[in-house]
Amino acid sequence: MIGTGLIGGSVGLALAARGWEVRGYDTDPARSEAALERGVLSELGDDRDAEIAFVATPSSSVPAVVRALLDDPARRPDLVVSDVSSVKAAVVGAIGHPRFVGGHPMAGSEQVGIDGADPDLFTGALWVLTPTPGTDLGAFSKVRGVVSSLGADVVALGPTDHDRLVAVVSHVPHLVAATLMNAAADGAEQDAVLLRLAAGGFRDMTRVAAGHPGIWPDVCADNAEAITSSLDRLIEDLAEMRDRVRMADRQGVFDVLERASRARRHLPARGARPEQLIEVRVPVSDREGVLAELTTVAGDLGINIYDIEIAHSAEGPRGVLLLVVDADDAGKLRDAVVTRGYHATAQALS
Amino acid sequence: MIGTGLIGGSVGLALAARGWEVRGYDTDPARSEAALERGVLSELGDDRDAEIAFVATPSSSVPAVVRALLDDPARRPDLVVSDVSSVKAAVVGAIGHPRFVGGHPMAGSEQVGIDGADPDLFTGALWVLTPTPGTDLGAFSKVRGVVSSLGADVVALGPTDHDRLVAVVSHVPHLVAATLMNAAADGAEQDAVLLRLAAGGFRDMTRVAAGHPGIWPDVCADNAEAITSSLDRLIEDLAEMRDRVRMADRQGVFDVLERASRARRHLPARGARPEQLIEVRVPVSDREGVLAELTTVAGDLGINIYDIEIAHSAEGPRGVLLLVVDADDAGKLRDAVVTRGYHATAQALS
Repeated sequence: MIGTGLIGGSVGLALAARGWEVRGYDTDPARSEAALERGVLSELGDDRDAEIAFVATPSSSVPAVVRALLDDPARRPDLVVSDVSSVKAAVVGAIGHPRFVGGHPMAGSEQVGIDGADPDLFTGALWVLTPTPGTDLGAFSKVRGVVSSLGADVVALGPTDHDRLVAVVSHVPHLVAATLMNAAADGAEQDAVLLRLAAGGFRDMTRVAAGHPGIWPDVCADNAEAITSSLDRLIEDLAEMRDRVRMADRQGVFDVLERASRARRHLPARGARPEQLIEVRVPVSDREGVLAELTTVAGDLGINIYDIEIAHSAEGPRGVLLLVVDADDAGKLRDAVVTRGYHATAQALS
Repeated sequence: MIGTGLIGGSVGLALAARGWEVRGYDTDPARSEAALERGVLSELGDDRDAEIAFVATPSSSVPAVVRALLDDPARRPDLVVSDVSSVKAAVVGAIGHPRFVGGHPMAGSEQVGIDGADPDLFTGALWVLTPTPGTDLGAFSKVRGVVSSLGADVVALGPTDHDRLVAVVSHVPHLVAATLMNAAADGAEQDAVLLRLAAGGFRDMTRVAAGHPGIWPDVCADNAEAITSSLDRLIEDLAEMRDRVRMADRQGVFDVLERASRARRHLPARGARPEQLIEVRVPVSDREGVLAELTTVAGDLGINIYDIEIAHSAEGPRGVLLLVVDADDAGKLRDAVVTRGYHATAQALS
């Protein structure tokens, strides 16, 4: 474990709670000591025999740290490395190693640093892994297994897709929350009563803005393209809304709000799963690219993969890729996979 | 009680629970019947001896309904009328009667109509009253007393100030929530997984968008000026944010988010009051305008009025206006009031 802040510390505690021996350090000696005291680490320092390494340092340092681990000939040849940074394409692209699997645990806390570390932080949280065509199946399977064992719900996405999607549902909403909060704070300087009028809706909308700003300069720099493009789209949409209001376009206002109301009421509850899940089984060899290829096939069809696993045969390079999807989607996915030259079967999960 | 939807129905139930005999109707006979069945009304129809009337119809019909009540010579000469519409300047301006006191109970519900009516809807909620220089002190005092008795926290604001401020903390945030939700829904048509990535922050930010769109065409039409101006400001702020992101202005991003974080963490909890409150007592005659004048003085100084009451002397037109403010503000308010030719004293509330 390299880096023992909120996320690194929480991963360490969660691993320790599941019987792992966790060694590691933080570049800040005081944080290393605190991690040792809190039981995040059983011992300070490096472990050349480690089978998996998590790099939980600021994103700008991740590529160099990961490269140093993977290029070290004294380490196990099957060492796998993952990270926890919130933007993936830059980091994953800079590393480009088959045994590095980019990760993004989508769990936060109002707290910062080791004091907020919590072994249950990932229970029920989404943890995105970002395989590429070069990712080693075994490495992916290893990281996926460990991360799932911490209670997280794993989703596999290409790094660029990940960045584009989190810009829409996380980064831009966060920047909007901060902007709304600052506008209200400005208004309150003129009219102190303004913040008293801020009821539940406003409180809900600005809650995330209370978080520590620490990681946001990195997030905005690493994901600048997707964020600016998503912000541009939002600005256009808001300008259209303003025009509807200015022109007293009642029907237009109603239609936009009606559509949003329907979409929000149908927003799936976190962790909700369809009633019937089907496991699509695809025998695969350990050749590069199969994971990215098949998860991309699913993504292109708009099919959610609720679970993904690789069942290796006891010997040899063959394995079975298990893709768990909604019963309604299983046939479509199987057909698409077969079209690409794979064999695939589908069976209901008990 | 004229109009027995969600708000009218809730006011009726709350009044009935406090021993009032509530008569009234809805223009829709089916809703009238439902209100009778639910106990919102003790009897259908009009009551010419009513001392207070609440008009809870759509905002476009409020002025005509209120005028008809106040201009009816068969009614009590001291009848006072209030309404519950969400935008005040247009309605209050169109009526312009000393015994009409505009009101806006800031309590909502995901539900719509009489089925969602709840006698406790206003407990701890803010209820804005919008006196003008022409408002009769006795009428204001009456409405204030009744509304307070329903458990609401009353704030007095000029109608235009009210509209400008709710545009910032309610109307524009609502339109933004809908816009964010629709952008995500559009994105989900391409990438079904997108909504699975929508975590707590996104859910919080879009929660209000789930509400029924019914009143929003009226709200946007009635408050078009303040909403467009506040939306323009937001669009400018977001464009600045986009430029910071595009230019990788890390310090700028940090500063904006740091400020928002501080402001959000200091956002007063709903219903929170300062530890020490002071009552500023101002003897006043029942002359027109004094209420609007003194609440405006407080507003201009950025002083929150936590409570406002008029204590009438047993006889004659004199009374004492009681303004409850934070101990830190009491001296400043008293001085400003004295400067305007009033006598004023301040005393701590036990």
